[in-house]
Amino acid sequence: MPTPEHMQAAVEAYVRALNAADLDAITALYADDARVEDPVGSTPSCGLNEIRAFYARSLRLKLQVALEGPVRAVAGEAAFAFSVSFEINGRPTTIRPIDVMRFDAAGRIVQMRAFFGPGNISTG
Amino acid sequence: MPTPEHMQAAVEAYVRALNAADLDAITALYADDARVEDPVGSTPSCGLNEIRAFYARSLRLKLQVALEGPVRAVAGEAAFAFSVSFEINGRPTTIRPIDVMRFDAAGRIVQMRAFFGPGNISTG
Repeated sequence: MPTPEHMQAAVEAYVRALNAADLDAITALYADDARVEDPVGSTPSCGLNEIRAFYARSLRLKLQVALEGPVRAVAGEAAFAFSVSFEINGRPTTIRPIDVMRFDAAGRIVQMRAFFGPGNISTG
Repeated sequence: MPTPEHMQAAVEAYVRALNAADLDAITALYADDARVEDPVGSTPSCGLNEIRAFYARSLRLKLQVALEGPVRAVAGEAAFAFSVSFEINGRPTTIRPIDVMRFDAAGRIVQMRAFFGPGNISTG
């Protein structure tokens, strides 16, 4: 099982990769058979091809991502609150999700679920 | 499926009940066959009897509970960050978990998982 320190570092690498719009760095964090459900309730992206396509779509907008509070890492899973800010049609928008990631024995993410609803999206 | 507004209200009622040490109010939020895994990785408390016993143990200490940031409520699930402060042997202690709750069609919690590790516990 991956250590809390490993999961903490993976979350920080994920945030850095999102800010850098580095698709290779993002997908390198995921296991081949991973599932990404973002937001919770949507059809998951399954496997690296679908996951890469999902992030490629997300990164069409320039994202500014920042952790909010500590990463909670325990028993092969990590949860963390963060904000994602971007402009859409010149309008500043911020989403504040909580992501939950499950890791495999090799320390790669096998499941990511992003919790946010309409109440967690604000536009300026 | 319960609305985001219902789940938001349930989380706020949960925090109020913890602060009031109101065991009846806490267990009233749970379905009969609910599972509580607190922290993630521990053996879950299954069913209302075990859940009540779990909270009775937790409430031996006077808890001060506060939400940190918004509740993320979507598709029958809610995630939220919060802090729990108490004194143990005269020492102030704070834990900062993220809880994930899944609700049934009747709007009661059927699963609660509390994410926190050693790095999320601070003692003064």
